[in-house]
Amino acid sequence: MKIAEPTVERLVQYHRLLEQLVAEGQKVVSSQEMGEMLSFKASQVRKDLSYFGEIGKRGVGYHVDRLHKHISRILASPRKWSIGLVGVGKLGEALLGYQAFQNDKFHIRALFDVDTDKIGTEIQGILCYSVDDITEIVREKEIEVLILTVPGGAAQHVADRAVQAGTVKGILNFAPVSLSVPENVLLAAVDISVELEKLLFFLKHKEE
Amino acid sequence: MKIAEPTVERLVQYHRLLEQLVAEGQKVVSSQEMGEMLSFKASQVRKDLSYFGEIGKRGVGYHVDRLHKHISRILASPRKWSIGLVGVGKLGEALLGYQAFQNDKFHIRALFDVDTDKIGTEIQGILCYSVDDITEIVREKEIEVLILTVPGGAAQHVADRAVQAGTVKGILNFAPVSLSVPENVLLAAVDISVELEKLLFFLKHKEE
Repeated sequence: MKIAEPTVERLVQYHRLLEQLVAEGQKVVSSQEMGEMLSFKASQVRKDLSYFGEIGKRGVGYHVDRLHKHISRILASPRKWSIGLVGVGKLGEALLGYQAFQNDKFHIRALFDVDTDKIGTEIQGILCYSVDDITEIVREKEIEVLILTVPGGAAQHVADRAVQAGTVKGILNFAPVSLSVPENVLLAAVDISVELEKLLFFLKHKEE
Repeated sequence: MKIAEPTVERLVQYHRLLEQLVAEGQKVVSSQEMGEMLSFKASQVRKDLSYFGEIGKRGVGYHVDRLHKHISRILASPRKWSIGLVGVGKLGEALLGYQAFQNDKFHIRALFDVDTDKIGTEIQGILCYSVDDITEIVREKEIEVLILTVPGGAAQHVADRAVQAGTVKGILNFAPVSLSVPENVLLAAVDISVELEKLLFFLKHKEE
C-alpha cells in the first residue's frame, strides 16, 4: 500500500478532528460536516475514508468512536520512536511544551544546543548536550528522528554530523533552508514563513 | 489565473532556494539541481516554471538572477499587509524573532495576549494589547491578517472576536484545532505536530 503525502496529511487531520469530536461526546458525523470543518469537499472525505475501508451510512454518516479507533490503528506506531531535538531556542522550547508532543508514539531522548548555559542542564526534563557531541550521543541513544530547530546557517552541518551516527531515519526540519541528506533518510520540512507567504499570495489574488 | 495551492507552495520554495543561490553567487541552475535540492522531479520544476513563463536553456538551465526576480514579482505584495499576532507565548515570540518575518510584505502592527505582565508592554518593538480589546484594536489598526499562536481551546473564540472587526481577510492558525470562519476569510493552518505524525507514518511504512 503506497500512500501519497496529501492523503496522509488528510488522514492525520481526520484523526485530529475525530479526537476533538470524541472529547465533545459527538456520536455520529457526516462527510459533509467533516469536510466543512476541515475545508475539504465531502466527496474527498468519503473517497479517503472508503479507501481505508470505512463506508458511512447514507443519511447518517460515520460512527465517531469507531472511525476514530480505525484511523488511530492506521496511524499507530510499531514502537516508540527515539527523537532528538537540536536547537533549544524559542521554537524548540515551544515544541517541547506542545501537548501534541507529549505523545505515546515517540520519546524525546536528547536535546542539543550550542549555548553553554543550556548544555548539561535538563530542560523540561530532558538533558541537553553540546552539538559538538551530536554524532556520539545520537549513536549511543539510537536516535532515529531529528527535529531541527536551529538557525538556517547551522542546519546542514548539524544534519550531516547527526546522520554520521548511522541511526537517523528521518529529519523534521524547521530551519528555513533546503537540506541535502542521504537517500535513506526521510526529510520533512516545516517552513513557517512559507505558510504566511502562501496566505498573502492568495489574499493578493483574491483582491485582483 | 487560478493557481492551485501546491503550485503556490512550490513557487514559494523555488523563491526561497533562488534567494539562497543568489546569496551564494551561483549564476545558472538546472531544473535537475533545483529538483534535487527541493525533492521535486526535474520535470515538475520545468513544468511549473514554464507555466509562469520561464523556459530554461537546454543543457544550461536558468539564469539564477533573472528567475529570482521573475518569481519575486509574482509573489510581490501590492502593499504591506497589516498583521496582528495573537498569543505571545514561546511560539509567538519565536515567530516575532524569525528573520523571514522581518519582511517588506507585511508589518506586525499589534500583539495580543491574556497575560497582564505582557499587556501594555512592547515585545520586540510591538505593543501588546489585551485579547479582551481585540475587536476594537483590529478595527482601529485595520488589521487584515491574524496569526494565531494561542492554545487550542482559545482559538475559535479569539478568531470570532477578531473577525467581528470586519477588517480581517486571512488567518494563519497555529493552534492545533480546526477553526470555522466566514467564507470571505481565508484560512491557512500550520499544525506542527501533524508534520511529525506524517513523518513517523512514512517511517513506519518504510519499515513494513
